Amino acid sequence: MRVGVHRLSMANPGDVSELRKLIDDKVIDPAEVVASIGKTEGNGGANDFTRALATRAVADLLAAELGITREEAGARAALAWSGGCEGVLSPHMTVFTRTGASGEGGSTGGLAISVQRTRHFLPEEVGRTGEVAAVAAAVTRALGELRVAADEVHYVQVKGPLLTPAGIADAAARGKEVVTTDPNRSKAYARGATALGVAVALGEVAPEQVTEDVIAADMNLYSAVANTSAGGELTDCEVIVFANSPASASPYRIGHGILRDVADVGGVREALRDAGLSFDTDPGEEQRARIAAVFAKAEAPAGGMLRGHRTTMLSDADIGYERHARAALGGVITSVTGDPRIFVSGGTEHQCPPGQAPIAAIVRMG
Amino acid sequence: MRVGVHRLSMANPGDVSELRKLIDDKVIDPAEVVASIGKTEGNGGANDFTRALATRAVADLLAAELGITREEAGARAALAWSGGCEGVLSPHMTVFTRTGASGEGGSTGGLAISVQRTRHFLPEEVGRTGEVAAVAAAVTRALGELRVAADEVHYVQVKGPLLTPAGIADAAARGKEVVTTDPNRSKAYARGATALGVAVALGEVAPEQVTEDVIAADMNLYSAVANTSAGGELTDCEVIVFANSPASASPYRIGHGILRDVADVGGVREALRDAGLSFDTDPGEEQRARIAAVFAKAEAPAGGMLRGHRTTMLSDADIGYERHARAALGGVITSVTGDPRIFVSGGTEHQCPPGQAPIAAIVRMG
Amino acid sequence: MRVGVHRLSMANPGDVSELRKLIDDKVIDPAEVVASIGKTEGNGGANDFTRALATRAVADLLAAELGITREEAGARAALAWSGGCEGVLSPHMTVFTRTGASGEGGSTGGLAISVQRTRHFLPEEVGRTGEVAAVAAAVTRALGELRVAADEVHYVQVKGPLLTPAGIADAAARGKEVVTTDPNRSKAYARGATALGVAVALGEVAPEQVTEDVIAADMNLYSAVANTSAGGELTDCEVIVFANSPASASPYRIGHGILRDVADVGGVREALRDAGLSFDTDPGEEQRARIAAVFAKAEAPAGGMLRGHRTTMLSDADIGYERHARAALGGVITSVTGDPRIFVSGGTEHQCPPGQAPIAAIVRMG
Amino acid sequence: MRVGVHRLSMANPGDVSELRKLIDDKVIDPAEVVASIGKTEGNGGANDFTRALATRAVADLLAAELGITREEAGARAALAWSGGCEGVLSPHMTVFTRTGASGEGGSTGGLAISVQRTRHFLPEEVGRTGEVAAVAAAVTRALGELRVAADEVHYVQVKGPLLTPAGIADAAARGKEVVTTDPNRSKAYARGATALGVAVALGEVAPEQVTEDVIAADMNLYSAVANTSAGGELTDCEVIVFANSPASASPYRIGHGILRDVADVGGVREALRDAGLSFDTDPGEEQRARIAAVFAKAEAPAGGMLRGHRTTMLSDADIGYERHARAALGGVITSVTGDPRIFVSGGTEHQCPPGQAPIAAIVRMG
Repeated sequence: MRVGVHRLSMANPGDVSELRKLIDDKVIDPAEVVASIGKTEGNGGANDFTRALATRAVADLLAAELGITREEAGARAALAWSGGCEGVLSPHMTVFTRTGASGEGGSTGGLAISVQRTRHFLPEEVGRTGEVAAVAAAVTRALGELRVAADEVHYVQVKGPLLTPAGIADAAARGKEVVTTDPNRSKAYARGATALGVAVALGEVAPEQVTEDVIAADMNLYSAVANTSAGGELTDCEVIVFANSPASASPYRIGHGILRDVADVGGVREALRDAGLSFDTDPGEEQRARIAAVFAKAEAPAGGMLRGHRTTMLSDADIGYERHARAALGGVITSVTGDPRIFVSGGTEHQCPPGQAPIAAIVRMG
Repeated sequence: MRVGVHRLSMANPGDVSELRKLIDDKVIDPAEVVASIGKTEGNGGANDFTRALATRAVADLLAAELGITREEAGARAALAWSGGCEGVLSPHMTVFTRTGASGEGGSTGGLAISVQRTRHFLPEEVGRTGEVAAVAAAVTRALGELRVAADEVHYVQVKGPLLTPAGIADAAARGKEVVTTDPNRSKAYARGATALGVAVALGEVAPEQVTEDVIAADMNLYSAVANTSAGGELTDCEVIVFANSPASASPYRIGHGILRDVADVGGVREALRDAGLSFDTDPGEEQRARIAAVFAKAEAPAGGMLRGHRTTMLSDADIGYERHARAALGGVITSVTGDPRIFVSGGTEHQCPPGQAPIAAIVRMG
Repeated sequence: MRVGVHRLSMANPGDVSELRKLIDDKVIDPAEVVASIGKTEGNGGANDFTRALATRAVADLLAAELGITREEAGARAALAWSGGCEGVLSPHMTVFTRTGASGEGGSTGGLAISVQRTRHFLPEEVGRTGEVAAVAAAVTRALGELRVAADEVHYVQVKGPLLTPAGIADAAARGKEVVTTDPNRSKAYARGATALGVAVALGEVAPEQVTEDVIAADMNLYSAVANTSAGGELTDCEVIVFANSPASASPYRIGHGILRDVADVGGVREALRDAGLSFDTDPGEEQRARIAAVFAKAEAPAGGMLRGHRTTMLSDADIGYERHARAALGGVITSVTGDPRIFVSGGTEHQCPPGQAPIAAIVRMG
Repeated sequence: MRVGVHRLSMANPGDVSELRKLIDDKVIDPAEVVASIGKTEGNGGANDFTRALATRAVADLLAAELGITREEAGARAALAWSGGCEGVLSPHMTVFTRTGASGEGGSTGGLAISVQRTRHFLPEEVGRTGEVAAVAAAVTRALGELRVAADEVHYVQVKGPLLTPAGIADAAARGKEVVTTDPNRSKAYARGATALGVAVALGEVAPEQVTEDVIAADMNLYSAVANTSAGGELTDCEVIVFANSPASASPYRIGHGILRDVADVGGVREALRDAGLSFDTDPGEEQRARIAAVFAKAEAPAGGMLRGHRTTMLSDADIGYERHARAALGGVITSVTGDPRIFVSGGTEHQCPPGQAPIAAIVRMG
């Protein structure tokens, strides 16, 4: 298996011109695109429609190239977006291609990727143990396909359903109880359940520890490599597992670290070094050129207090705390990597210990 | 002369409880307070009234302690505020006290401070060469008082008038022409003229280079240590000059650097080292504890392009570009210093070359 | 008793120049100022400090005029502010003076005002039945002082405490349970409890109906004339009762109506007519000049659906729903009254039936 | 000619389900769709991508139904969108169908519509007299096609190009000067030039009055029925002319009025009555049901002063003035019509006298 990593700039959320050019230039075979993870420039909130526009634009392009429908294109490739390019963060997408199966094409011990989907969930299942189990099973399938042990996994991106007003009404009509009747609050359960699914599959949490009452509640249960989001546009979970595998022939390696807070430059360096980059203070120009992608979560500090000092993140009625957090962390990461095309998203339930957040980096081998 | 540096947290823009406690505890003699530079948590725009509230709170406290009026207190101490605590930036004020005159109390070669005021300006003088000359004269007076040469100056904070609708109308009524009839646009002229005044006094720009047409226009003329702002609440300029002086007995030193952009961590380290801190990658805990204050400007990159990549700063209709820039830079500086109580403000006309910005740091001697 | 009503424009939240001029001109006797209700131009959220600035400015002026402290001035006059001047709403304050006691100075059957305060509440009492009872007692005292029956009351403005992080911590330290540990959520309990207090005193709700579990929950219990707010800066409740009284000699009358939604112009006309204005479609110029003040609440429609159509109020992550609602209602009221200096605030728990909101108007007698 | 008017709600900017249903139900023949004018729920600024998403969704649906490409569908039907659903404004689109040519199908003297396109413009032509002339010629062609005189025209919607950074660079590369190098500022020229084109064609302004220097400058030259916008996505102008014509067999009539400011309810009533609705104070339920569509512009008052009172529209750094203005006007119009699906957009250069704005209404005949 050989994984291609293409970080592409976007002039607007509907701009797929760089992807189109790589396809036209035969650099990317559209049939080999398995996933894309990107940042769009909306506000990241409930009324951020830039993700929908970007999904539509990429799916339309792949559909036209492959002679299939937009829906079929969306089912072939996992398209994950996070809205909100605050501070220096630059709108972009990282497109992943995969050629061959595990073990084919030689071995570099490098980057391997597996995309899995769970079954569809009814509204009353969202944010509950059934979803945890289904995600865990999907991650386990990926480990098998990639021929890797849990400790070789460095990043698992999961996108799953949340509770919409329509879903809540549907459950009520059938006499079923949902985990919460507040659509916004359901995000925490939805992100939390899928993160716990990752944790269970990777042995970070024992299956018997996951009862209904711990989801979005006992934050001492967590995965250090999960990065999960929830959206109203899907009813199953898309699971993208990234690992280094002896069955991979890719020229990239992936690594990860933990961000103690949004100003923790140490966590950034940790992820880059874990991916194989060697440097003292900062990576040099040549080393920076080898950084192919960075994926992180940003979180407001507990009580808004960063290292003992008050921030305004949680009291600001004009700008949401996720926007503050992404802006700060994006500056910190760019100060190390030099490239602001970084995937930073919000919401860290069961992803690292409370107040902390995961970061992963993909680096071209030297 | 001995300068005291007190960085104080604020629970809200009217909170002076930490200053009151230091006065009650006899740590600060209110009669020795010469200046305060702080960040408040408004939006930093025309409708940010947190600066006014903070000014009023500090002046009221000093007035009560000294038995004078609020207006007299405001005239005794230069009170400079910048609105906007984005990302991790923490609301605070740094209070400067001064004991004794230059040369009194021994010599450490450390931090010296001089506060000067210019004459009052008519609206038609704002942003023009007369203001440049007056600020230059004020800085020159400060050099004399501090017994320092220009290259020992590391930071000059200037706050001067801008053109308000009332001022524009007043000039029109007297048949005088103002530099611009757009109050918002006048900020650039006002900040630019005072920065050029600093540059002239410090020999960074020759006096004959400063003609009316270069102000806010020829950005290759600049000071590397000026940090200027403009507000509608005053008609003269407050000039605070910070230098290291053989005539100082302070236990602090000041240094400065240049930020190439808002993700330039190198400029942050440069300022800290210039102030006397020695460290490899990052300052350690003990060194961090010696950092008394950091002052910087944040600027959007030209065309919104940071290191060749598009940011959304200039196209975002929800969040102003200064807020994006401050949030990113605040994260970067905090990642080095560990303390988010940093003074970062916007607007860099004639303060460093285009796209770049000044940064200064005060460090307690080891 | 004679009540004076002075609607004063403000150039900024600290501007009390119109009030100062009326005092200087002997139009207002500062010793007779009993209350002020105003709108300031912040965002109306947790980080809106324009209310604090305005309170300080008015209290400082009254203190200087009366030779008392700021705190004493704040205790003499009830100063209520709502942040958020969206759309056409104009920053202003309406100052109320009172001369003589009930029955003194003849009778017009016009406007009477009584300002009452409750005892101070511990955090664990906020939003609970004890607060309901205390507010009810305060309103009952006002009825007695004004010599009016409940149905002569047209508007009761209440400002009470909410739960701050500090208050929640204090209760926890003493082993006491608060109604909610979420400061934002506590607003609903705080506004709801005080509104129910008004309802009980006016006979709109029976005392035995008010149990802990109905507060901020059973919205079919309500007062049609309460307008309540909650803030972290006080621990008791300020209650301002407005009625028409045979014991009043004021040249004004007050009336009220109910707004079915934020576009309900019928409710606006209802309040004006109830206060004594006669007009067909719109009040004419002369009638408009007689409108002295308008006070209303604005509420997002249930589910964001206005008359069957979707609004974006509840899904907008950039602008809070209260701001949307105030902007729309401010336009509607101004289209009738012609003067945008209208008090419109948000949060209608137990103030009119769900989705509806109170509106009151004071009109000079013809 | 028979014009169909279909006001359709949208659950999100990509939602065309109501249009699809009407096509499926044979209520709308997709081949007869000539134009759509709608409001989407973005911020209305440079980073509002909801218009692009809506355009794509409608064009994709028409393309699929007609078996043509998206681009061909966009060329067949003029699709005009304005971003920003503030206050009560409800996201929607009004779809116009046209059956038969002028004079066919009998005569009601009712609504007639003509869609015209100008030639494409080079960047250096945008906002200049050549564009004025081309728009005037397009409107004149429409008058001929509709067989109406100028005074029977009640509403002309024009969407034309603005200057993008790319266009400005292109002109510079060819040594051509553009009207302004500031993309945001170009909106005023672009909207102004197309509005003057309408004014010239309708005899409201004499052709010889339109010189380069009056565009976006002499606001006493205007059309009372133009409603123009500018976007970076097109290089020609789409012109949609609405009139009442003896050659029309439509069951609708159109009328217009002038809004003196955003709280001017009189202008709203004027437009409805001009379209044929008779009512005293407010239209009743039956009359309201006959209102098919309302189109208006919203403008901040000069200096932010509404009827002598200060608004915060022009000083608010959090919410743009167009958003304040639309929110207020949307409330006022809805208070009369009862349906918040109203088209309100911003930017009134040469559209009504300064500070005023056009409003048009389409009403089903009684």
